[in-house]
Amino acid sequence: MNAAFPTPGADETQRLLSPEELEAALRDIGARRYHNLHPFHRLLHDGKLSKDQVRAWALNRYYYQAMIPVKDAALLARLPDAALRRVWRQRIVDHDGDHEGDGGIERWLKLAEGVGFARDYVLSTKGILSATRFSVDAYVHFVSERSLLEAIASSLTEMFSPTIISERVAGMLKNYDFITKETLAYFDKRLTQAPRDADFALDYVKRHATTPELQRAAMGALTFKCNVLWTQLDALYFAYVAPGMIPPDAWQPGEGLVQDAAPASAPGGVKLVAADVPRLPRGVRMRFDQARDKHVLLAPERTFDLDDNAVAVLQLVDGQRSVTQIAEQLAQTYAADARVIEADILVMLNDLAEKRVLER
Amino acid sequence: MNAAFPTPGADETQRLLSPEELEAALRDIGARRYHNLHPFHRLLHDGKLSKDQVRAWALNRYYYQAMIPVKDAALLARLPDAALRRVWRQRIVDHDGDHEGDGGIERWLKLAEGVGFARDYVLSTKGILSATRFSVDAYVHFVSERSLLEAIASSLTEMFSPTIISERVAGMLKNYDFITKETLAYFDKRLTQAPRDADFALDYVKRHATTPELQRAAMGALTFKCNVLWTQLDALYFAYVAPGMIPPDAWQPGEGLVQDAAPASAPGGVKLVAADVPRLPRGVRMRFDQARDKHVLLAPERTFDLDDNAVAVLQLVDGQRSVTQIAEQLAQTYAADARVIEADILVMLNDLAEKRVLER
Repeated sequence: MNAAFPTPGADETQRLLSPEELEAALRDIGARRYHNLHPFHRLLHDGKLSKDQVRAWALNRYYYQAMIPVKDAALLARLPDAALRRVWRQRIVDHDGDHEGDGGIERWLKLAEGVGFARDYVLSTKGILSATRFSVDAYVHFVSERSLLEAIASSLTEMFSPTIISERVAGMLKNYDFITKETLAYFDKRLTQAPRDADFALDYVKRHATTPELQRAAMGALTFKCNVLWTQLDALYFAYVAPGMIPPDAWQPGEGLVQDAAPASAPGGVKLVAADVPRLPRGVRMRFDQARDKHVLLAPERTFDLDDNAVAVLQLVDGQRSVTQIAEQLAQTYAADARVIEADILVMLNDLAEKRVLER
Repeated sequence: MNAAFPTPGADETQRLLSPEELEAALRDIGARRYHNLHPFHRLLHDGKLSKDQVRAWALNRYYYQAMIPVKDAALLARLPDAALRRVWRQRIVDHDGDHEGDGGIERWLKLAEGVGFARDYVLSTKGILSATRFSVDAYVHFVSERSLLEAIASSLTEMFSPTIISERVAGMLKNYDFITKETLAYFDKRLTQAPRDADFALDYVKRHATTPELQRAAMGALTFKCNVLWTQLDALYFAYVAPGMIPPDAWQPGEGLVQDAAPASAPGGVKLVAADVPRLPRGVRMRFDQARDKHVLLAPERTFDLDDNAVAVLQLVDGQRSVTQIAEQLAQTYAADARVIEADILVMLNDLAEKRVLER
């Protein structure tokens, strides 16, 4: 025990790993970095999330699902021979399906519908977090721009997905009464597809990463992909768990749901009655346009001209007064019948609510 | 007051805005969406952040600064005539400078150094959040891939930056004793550069957005850019303010600082003494490689082979035992002199600390 302790030299980091060592190193990246370790997934699987938090997850994750075949098409375009392309194109078939109503994207839409979303709202992706879009797009760009080896290695998170899927399906079925086996049908297919895809990609990486530099590039690509997944959960946690700061334009609980799944406070589609207290949704405001000498109602990327009557009503829409109280105030100002005014402005307010620039 | 209240029809959203109305609509996007409204900036300007939180901001924002001339070069490559390119290339000059030590990127490096960072650490960008990288890269890709009008319109956040800069410089100088006027020299230049750039881009957009569709595209591009900025602050807030969940590999307080700015617990460069309690940093662990029948020390993207002596020591490194206690334990096991062992293992442990796979 008196001998000095030799420690690894700097050149150790340059050593060529055997294919088995490389696989072990790749699996170790997953063991330390795969998103099953993220606190959001722990909450999801343990039944600690509210229905709206599960909805936020399903909605945002749809964008990832929808872009997977785009990513795989970009990769397919770079594969140099028919044999490789024949194998890889199966991934696109799996996600896009063989006919209308088939495929992984469709099954994820079913999941989103299963938790209450209107199909068109999910398809529009307008409620997703910018961080979701930027992370997923980073993945598509990575696969298009990096070396083929890195592009293929970045798909290796599939090696780790069977574990998380089993855990997720069991946990969600047990813990959420609004989740059914049909809702989670997406994951059934992935349990067989993912290992098949991962085996092929892992074999490719082990055969082609033949220098220390290429091996490090492959490990870097898998780390990058783990970050793509992790960053999406960070953003979900931030917006919908804690501190719960939903960025501008991102989905707000209540939005985009089908009628019978929507709570009473959902904007649009809900009929305002006289006792309701109308208010302008976040991001909508009235503004006087000096150049044109008239009032306009500004909504994100939409503008509505307002006539004098509409201005008079909207000036009283303050989130405090009910429709009846607004009508009474106007009746006083204009010395008119409050009941007649109330009927008139209900038509107008419901029209604005229909356009989603007013809510109750 | 008995007339029905006419409300704007759906076709209002298709109306062509006058150039002045378009400018008002663009300014309104800034008034609702620019990142001066983000809670992280309120904390930053009001002196509510710790020095480490300010460091996280400076470090991450460096990546944005460093990519701005890349973004502008991508845009320059798309401009169809010399007159436009002559104007736009000034942005690249502003950021890259005219000589070594000049330019906006250099001034941001000065800011990062001013709050304690080692220059090389900042330049490496290895400690930035993935969300920062994905957001900034989304901006570069947007400018490369969208229409020229959208690419130019996405730069219009410059219209709003003079306000935030004045507020920031005054607030930071007043509230942080570690911030000097020299540290913030970056912003002095931007106060004249940003309005000049914004005037040109705004004029271009007003002259070229000549249909309702193009006007909506320009507004969408500015909204996108606001999201690029906003998302970066969301991620900073999440990682370093609340809930304070720093993603794997992102900067940890203490890392990347110059010697005299580093607290005592900073890894690397610090000499372990016998009384210190060594431990493996996050992300580093010992693992038995069955294929090769030996132990290895796994660090992110680095692997070190370990001999039996190193394994014997590292098995006792548990974040509880001091170096002296480890030596005593080994002396007992191997019936050897604890003082001699202590001297030996201090050499070995300091060597590992130097490689940043051990810390105290």
